[in-house]
Amino acid sequence: MHEESATPRRLAELAQLAGGRVEGDGERPVRDLRTLDDAGPDDLAPLFSPAYREAARASRAGALLVPEDHARLTAGLERRDLLLAPHPQAAMARILGALHPVERPRPGVHPTAVVGEGCEVDHTAHVGPYAVIGDGSRLAAGVVVEALAVVGRRCDLGEAAWLHPHAVLYDRTVLGPRTEVHAGAVIGSDGFGYATQGGVHHKVPQVGRAVLGEDVEIGANSAIDRGALGDTTIGAGSKIDNLVQVGHNVHTGRGVILCGQAGIAGSTSLGDFVVVGGHGGVIDHMKVGNGVQVAAMTAVYSDFPDGTQVAGIPATDIRSWRRQVALLRRLESMFRRLRAVEKVLEASGGGPGAETATADDEEEPR
Amino acid sequence: MHEESATPRRLAELAQLAGGRVEGDGERPVRDLRTLDDAGPDDLAPLFSPAYREAARASRAGALLVPEDHARLTAGLERRDLLLAPHPQAAMARILGALHPVERPRPGVHPTAVVGEGCEVDHTAHVGPYAVIGDGSRLAAGVVVEALAVVGRRCDLGEAAWLHPHAVLYDRTVLGPRTEVHAGAVIGSDGFGYATQGGVHHKVPQVGRAVLGEDVEIGANSAIDRGALGDTTIGAGSKIDNLVQVGHNVHTGRGVILCGQAGIAGSTSLGDFVVVGGHGGVIDHMKVGNGVQVAAMTAVYSDFPDGTQVAGIPATDIRSWRRQVALLRRLESMFRRLRAVEKVLEASGGGPGAETATADDEEEPR
Amino acid sequence: MHEESATPRRLAELAQLAGGRVEGDGERPVRDLRTLDDAGPDDLAPLFSPAYREAARASRAGALLVPEDHARLTAGLERRDLLLAPHPQAAMARILGALHPVERPRPGVHPTAVVGEGCEVDHTAHVGPYAVIGDGSRLAAGVVVEALAVVGRRCDLGEAAWLHPHAVLYDRTVLGPRTEVHAGAVIGSDGFGYATQGGVHHKVPQVGRAVLGEDVEIGANSAIDRGALGDTTIGAGSKIDNLVQVGHNVHTGRGVILCGQAGIAGSTSLGDFVVVGGHGGVIDHMKVGNGVQVAAMTAVYSDFPDGTQVAGIPATDIRSWRRQVALLRRLESMFRRLRAVEKVLEASGGGPGAETATADDEEEPR
Repeated sequence: MHEESATPRRLAELAQLAGGRVEGDGERPVRDLRTLDDAGPDDLAPLFSPAYREAARASRAGALLVPEDHARLTAGLERRDLLLAPHPQAAMARILGALHPVERPRPGVHPTAVVGEGCEVDHTAHVGPYAVIGDGSRLAAGVVVEALAVVGRRCDLGEAAWLHPHAVLYDRTVLGPRTEVHAGAVIGSDGFGYATQGGVHHKVPQVGRAVLGEDVEIGANSAIDRGALGDTTIGAGSKIDNLVQVGHNVHTGRGVILCGQAGIAGSTSLGDFVVVGGHGGVIDHMKVGNGVQVAAMTAVYSDFPDGTQVAGIPATDIRSWRRQVALLRRLESMFRRLRAVEKVLEASGGGPGAETATADDEEEPR
Repeated sequence: MHEESATPRRLAELAQLAGGRVEGDGERPVRDLRTLDDAGPDDLAPLFSPAYREAARASRAGALLVPEDHARLTAGLERRDLLLAPHPQAAMARILGALHPVERPRPGVHPTAVVGEGCEVDHTAHVGPYAVIGDGSRLAAGVVVEALAVVGRRCDLGEAAWLHPHAVLYDRTVLGPRTEVHAGAVIGSDGFGYATQGGVHHKVPQVGRAVLGEDVEIGANSAIDRGALGDTTIGAGSKIDNLVQVGHNVHTGRGVILCGQAGIAGSTSLGDFVVVGGHGGVIDHMKVGNGVQVAAMTAVYSDFPDGTQVAGIPATDIRSWRRQVALLRRLESMFRRLRAVEKVLEASGGGPGAETATADDEEEPR
Repeated sequence: MHEESATPRRLAELAQLAGGRVEGDGERPVRDLRTLDDAGPDDLAPLFSPAYREAARASRAGALLVPEDHARLTAGLERRDLLLAPHPQAAMARILGALHPVERPRPGVHPTAVVGEGCEVDHTAHVGPYAVIGDGSRLAAGVVVEALAVVGRRCDLGEAAWLHPHAVLYDRTVLGPRTEVHAGAVIGSDGFGYATQGGVHHKVPQVGRAVLGEDVEIGANSAIDRGALGDTTIGAGSKIDNLVQVGHNVHTGRGVILCGQAGIAGSTSLGDFVVVGGHGGVIDHMKVGNGVQVAAMTAVYSDFPDGTQVAGIPATDIRSWRRQVALLRRLESMFRRLRAVEKVLEASGGGPGAETATADDEEEPR
């Protein structure tokens, strides 16, 4: 967690952090970075989009964090001190990091934690109350295992990896350095594999692992299954939101983004920097290329090459999907126009006849 | 949890509770309210819909709970004692509440619970085994924190708030009076916010809070993210089902209903009494008006005004969507009719020509 | 969990286990069953599909597990020892089971476990650290309750039932013999039932139970609600993946398969061997016949008879849905063809006129 109250910083100092520059008073002390609505005279507030111009006008914020080409945003605003940043979102990330430093729990193993036999727990690691660590696991320097989290047997947690309360790692799970697992997420659970014979689903033992690279973040209550044979692997720098499901033997590239409630079925591979929107899904055994973007609530039923943007059920190129959606809205008028054409032909004695236009076709759609 | 076995009550007494009246023997003792299939001669059973008339005929129930205009439901049934209620569902809620009173755990902090420094725990609160409460949190009168639940630092739990086992509150979460969080739900987890620069997703620190109003209920394994800047807020009386995702800086009005696996993306606001069906989703930064109803597996990609009913991906007015669905079922016959029209014109020498109707168009759809 | 390292077995011995036979050296020692990519000279690797022929060519695997009619798979491969199996998936399940026997935790109750009053815990049961068992529950022979799992009051766990860490059973839940609940899953949580009166959602007390048959498996972070009145029941041999939601009073038949993030709303019944794909949903009060197959991301809004295969939102017969999808891709050309027909008629002076083909219709879809 982040510390709540911030020590004031000078605006110029924050600009330096953010790789930006000040227009106005660089000596202004900034207490916090807050929304336009919440900010007071001692605060900095972000103004990135024209949608917030009215809010900016009404805001009591003493200073504004704006993009370099802010003319349209700030035109007509009463004069404020401005922090101009080339990458405003990245600036916000850095400024918040400075004003709200992460509160890292103190090193040490809580007396109630249960640590199994043959574990290596670095003396700088933190293990919280009632956490349970299985035999033979390794916690590198700076690892945090919060209260009530569970680490299975023979797991490997890289430097500064962080498990929030109630996170669960099944046996032999590997977390890369700085990888963070939020509350309730389950990593390395059994894949969903059965051999059905005579009406009985016989479980295929799931003997692989879940291996997460460095700088991965896994959201609350998500589930990443272990491999059946071989491993499930999540590439470095990937970010996975809450309630996401990743099946056995999925492989993702680097920097993949899976939004809330997305699901990736077994043995599918996602290239580097793939983005899957909320509720989006990819069926099993697909190959999704680098940089593919899958819209929210889209079902990917086929492979897609690098750089494609897709939407729909089943997924198709997003421009085709948008045209389909537009055409669907004109379907009713199309039916009327077709009927009109048929009537003209009937009136001229040359209609296609009753065989084609049946009573059912005549009926107005409900 | 509710107590299992019920002390018998007289039918007339239950009618009074339910704001209804008896037709038949008001002195009849009622042991329990059970389904038509399960009820015995000492039980009351609900009969609200004609779909259950056969089950009512076969039922051994001694008495029936029916709406006031029950003639169509009970016609032809052998005579039973009836409890007529103006609001049968509400009557059922009240009668079950009387027959199965809630078993509230006894006040007191279990010796194994870990309570941080500077906490205020009311002497009427219950804290179960292995629960962990962070520094500086406040538990008001009658709060229940069940076994293995986690309360972060500086949280505020209003009067009679209830955390089921394994519920997790991140730091600074606020629960209104009587708000209930079911097992495994996570409130106040980090929002999903990154600033991507040079192929690296830099985390935007999430320094806001999750603030739930009074009489909110959160289902098992749901996740409500804290705000990035500012708060995520859930309006009083809202009911959220299992496995629902609510993103950072979402604001909901009062009495909102989010059904199982619904997802609301960041910075979206929902008006009072919005209903989102199962698997339904709203993308980020939308404004959904009061009383809007979103059908199951619908994706809301635009704002909607008060009172709209919407369905589809992307969501549209539900009547338009129903017409689209009906038209889609007639699409095949439409293709045939269009081809027939083209053939008539071709036969008369005036067809639109090969340029328009390509070989691909001729092909029958698979 | 399964043991990691395997004692080598002779290939002929594994063939016998799998009900298959060897082509080549039956005396070959097999250390493990691994993927074609991972296998070394001492390993057996599966080759079930032509898609893996290249991988097989490159593989260092000493032996291959193949179906009986393997000619097309192995043509042109350098000679390997083969294990031919009539049911290759089932063979894989049995061989893995032999090479990686399940590591069952030792009988005994961990000193930190909290066991309520009046519980019956068989002396062969295992209860892990910080597990909490409510009053009056029964754990039969061979039951495993792992670390930090919660069993409510008056629950009944049949022989060899297994709760993984953080699994939660609400009061009075029943698990059949050998039923397994993965980490974070919640069984018997309150159903989502409210009676709304005057803008207030009054909770309908949920007084039924969740009753799971024998040999059921429930995935990580899934949620199965208890009945409102009466029970929610899951048929024997059913397999439920991660993050699945099952509402109150759902009844499933035997051998049902619910894939990741599927959702079944309240009071719906599923017949024997129903399969619901990932993200698939069924609304409340439906009857889905035996053997019905619901495709991924499909919304079932109506009853379906035995053996139907359905897809789409709303769900329809899968062949109709496939035709609709194909026709949608031709919609744009259809619009063009219709316009061409109208122009021919207009040119001949017999067009349907401006009233029908409006300016809006002329516009090209975006």
